[in-house]
Amino acid sequence: MRYRTTVKWMAGLAAVAVWLACMPAAAQTAGERVERWGIYETSLRGPDAENSFAEVQLSAEFRSKDRVVKVDGFYDGEGAYRIRFMPDAEGEWTYVTRSNAKQLDGESGRFTCVPASGGNHGPVRVRNTFHFAYADGTPYFPFGTTCYAWVHQGDELEERTLETLRTAGFNKMRMTVFPKDYTYNRNEPLYHPFARDAAGKPDLGRFNPEFFRHFEKRVAQLGELGIEADLILFHPYDRWGYARMDEASDFRYLRYLVARLAAYRNVWWSAANEYDLMQKPEDLWDRYLKFIEEHDPYGRLRSIHNGRRIYDHSKPWITHVSIQHPDTLQTMDWRERFGKPVVNDECQYEGNIPNDWGNLTAQELVHRVWNGVIEGGYVGHGETYLHPKDVLWWSKGGVLHGESYKRMAFLRKLVEETGEEITPTPRTWLWRSNASGVQGERRWTYYGGRQPAKAKIAGLADNKPYRVDIIDAWEMTVKTLSDVFRGEAEIALPGKPFTAVRLRPAD
Amino acid sequence: MRYRTTVKWMAGLAAVAVWLACMPAAAQTAGERVERWGIYETSLRGPDAENSFAEVQLSAEFRSKDRVVKVDGFYDGEGAYRIRFMPDAEGEWTYVTRSNAKQLDGESGRFTCVPASGGNHGPVRVRNTFHFAYADGTPYFPFGTTCYAWVHQGDELEERTLETLRTAGFNKMRMTVFPKDYTYNRNEPLYHPFARDAAGKPDLGRFNPEFFRHFEKRVAQLGELGIEADLILFHPYDRWGYARMDEASDFRYLRYLVARLAAYRNVWWSAANEYDLMQKPEDLWDRYLKFIEEHDPYGRLRSIHNGRRIYDHSKPWITHVSIQHPDTLQTMDWRERFGKPVVNDECQYEGNIPNDWGNLTAQELVHRVWNGVIEGGYVGHGETYLHPKDVLWWSKGGVLHGESYKRMAFLRKLVEETGEEITPTPRTWLWRSNASGVQGERRWTYYGGRQPAKAKIAGLADNKPYRVDIIDAWEMTVKTLSDVFRGEAEIALPGKPFTAVRLRPAD
Repeated sequence: MRYRTTVKWMAGLAAVAVWLACMPAAAQTAGERVERWGIYETSLRGPDAENSFAEVQLSAEFRSKDRVVKVDGFYDGEGAYRIRFMPDAEGEWTYVTRSNAKQLDGESGRFTCVPASGGNHGPVRVRNTFHFAYADGTPYFPFGTTCYAWVHQGDELEERTLETLRTAGFNKMRMTVFPKDYTYNRNEPLYHPFARDAAGKPDLGRFNPEFFRHFEKRVAQLGELGIEADLILFHPYDRWGYARMDEASDFRYLRYLVARLAAYRNVWWSAANEYDLMQKPEDLWDRYLKFIEEHDPYGRLRSIHNGRRIYDHSKPWITHVSIQHPDTLQTMDWRERFGKPVVNDECQYEGNIPNDWGNLTAQELVHRVWNGVIEGGYVGHGETYLHPKDVLWWSKGGVLHGESYKRMAFLRKLVEETGEEITPTPRTWLWRSNASGVQGERRWTYYGGRQPAKAKIAGLADNKPYRVDIIDAWEMTVKTLSDVFRGEAEIALPGKPFTAVRLRPAD
Repeated sequence: MRYRTTVKWMAGLAAVAVWLACMPAAAQTAGERVERWGIYETSLRGPDAENSFAEVQLSAEFRSKDRVVKVDGFYDGEGAYRIRFMPDAEGEWTYVTRSNAKQLDGESGRFTCVPASGGNHGPVRVRNTFHFAYADGTPYFPFGTTCYAWVHQGDELEERTLETLRTAGFNKMRMTVFPKDYTYNRNEPLYHPFARDAAGKPDLGRFNPEFFRHFEKRVAQLGELGIEADLILFHPYDRWGYARMDEASDFRYLRYLVARLAAYRNVWWSAANEYDLMQKPEDLWDRYLKFIEEHDPYGRLRSIHNGRRIYDHSKPWITHVSIQHPDTLQTMDWRERFGKPVVNDECQYEGNIPNDWGNLTAQELVHRVWNGVIEGGYVGHGETYLHPKDVLWWSKGGVLHGESYKRMAFLRKLVEETGEEITPTPRTWLWRSNASGVQGERRWTYYGGRQPAKAKIAGLADNKPYRVDIIDAWEMTVKTLSDVFRGEAEIALPGKPFTAVRLRPAD
């Protein structure tokens, strides 16, 4: 038995996603059309037993021209099985299912993949070693934030979070799959990922489809807002046992998650938050990441986030460096060491809590973000202001109280309007005093906690004419000097901190 | 022939030093008294020839009880030879001279070393591995500044510099022996260290006593102000050839300098500024430092200051780490690596010049100084504000225009009033977020660019009662909480940057 659902996932069309989230598998007629990088979904009826999660295997081979893509299906409870697929090429696609359950085996179907709609640039991929781009070639510059457990807070707060994200200026969200147990995070989640007995003990052999439907809805809603969902698969902050499952359960969970979520084009896989603070051997992380690489037919981005010990990001199953480190002037070292894009997801957060990773001034965080970006990497945001009801953005979402996010949005605008990737200028001393980057023919210097009254303009050796923008990274102003500069030149600067200079070709 | 001069070098008695500087060898009667760590000087008449500097050797053995100290004498021009000696023990001292010039050989004399006068604590020595103390046991916490070429600016400016130093709060000065040729430093010095021919070409075989008498006067004047003179023996910023002398001339210069200056109890030897930017092989620096160690009878402090390459300060002839590095939170790494006191003499300077080592905001420099000090090291000051006549403090002295020096004086006062050495608390992550140190039973945390609204007080496990001081490192205020704290406790903090907390035993 088969039900097919074409998920047209379009930016700004929230109603679609809400409908998707409710997910009653709507029967549709043949000749369906799915946009490129959208989701084709088919539903089938199959065995409805306690052990269906563990016993029933389901997959499908999707074919178009000379391409064959094998994807896993998943059991969604109450006898419903689904297969989700993201077509990455326009044209006709057909598929046939394979299953050890007779009802689910040998089902076939077809659909037409049509051009992507306006806001759909496809999934993000690594480009030019140290940077990212959408599949359609549009550059993607990550300006992310973190709300670890925002999907576990209930609809009211979760919808407020989405409303905040609509205008906050972020295009990536770090978020955990599992709920979180930690300071300021003692509330019980609405949904648990596994079925639970009367005493609340999880049955690791049975997933809770309600949990995942809710989770997928939120991932899709982020997608509508143009926000990549950097999904954290494991984390140590736990009181329910999810951080200490046996290996077999971990792998089952990963396979189920990949089967359900890999088709969402905004999904990234982050194996863990602070992986080294968990009670798992180092090589197990390698195996998890390899397993994901093997089972995700789309090759979504894969990373792992450190606590005290930095992972060897040069390992081949890692697509980009996800790092926790307060010193963003080390960005170019990490680029050189790992040869991959550097995303410093946690250079500590703006806030005022006692924990020393969560009480930066807004100025200090903005400073770190600029340093990392102009050094050719990307730096994430987080906010941890004390709140009477413990609603801290970093973990629960809600509204933003700080000042740094506005400056990050300003920097994102500056970077996106030039549209080119930043390569740091080489270091000639043991240390780096200013962040300075070259981006195509545009050049950047960020002075940070410095106040030069004047500066030599470097890098004009090509003797072409340049426009000079004097940027105030805190006041969020750009003043373009009226003169056009060539060759060696000296310019006056405002002599205050947060100054940056950008050069643009004048012709 | 012999003339003896007893130099009583007493703090605040400027007239004495001026008289010393004029240095006409005054004949005195026997039974002289010299205070402990003061200077006994004797003058002798000897050969007055072109080659006297090179040919005449002079030394003396000073004896007291079972001690024998051999010191070099030096030729001071016009037939005058001098021997300077700093007695480090009270009682009767006698001496006999040795020379290859008959006139100077076999002269003898005696004096009585009496207790040190009030402000005289003796020379500074390393104590407790990572710290310093005066010879009388008084702790010495270096809060230094840099005016590289201040002694080459002429009396008017040099006296203004001394006037500034009288109240600025510094107790160490980094200064070059040779004049300096560099940006903002193109003026010709008044004195050159060598005799020069009509064309201005230096004769490296003949010193210029006038130069050294002037230099010594300034060193003595710093001593009167309680300021250690960290003498930089070589530096690369030169147009006269002093940076590129042959080895033999370098060694002759070092021996002459040590003979003239080692007796001044406030002298420290810094082999070079940015040694690795000079055209000298690495092993030559080792040999210079060993040579100084061998010829300086008092074992004055010896260091060497890096440019791009950090010297191996674990070498035995190095007494303390002199480092140039902007990241003062690495202080504890250098302590561990070298096992010696860390003096970060150049974490870059407050100012607004284009050079990236010279345009920190005052806030940024103050921040770096606090971080380094609370991490168990010491951090130097420098100031480089553009000036219409290129009188920048960092090189020429004059007056201070900035804001950081006042905060350094404030921190010095705080550290001196506790009187105990700071040991950094161990690092538990890859990085250090706050500087935090333990000093005897007093404990410090410096929050820098952080704004916690509250903090847990750590380190009260001894369950003794503590007073808590809330310090504003920028506003220079100390607020002592009225409560007395024991065991685990949480305190409210002002939630603004530049906050520090100090705990003091309440009983």
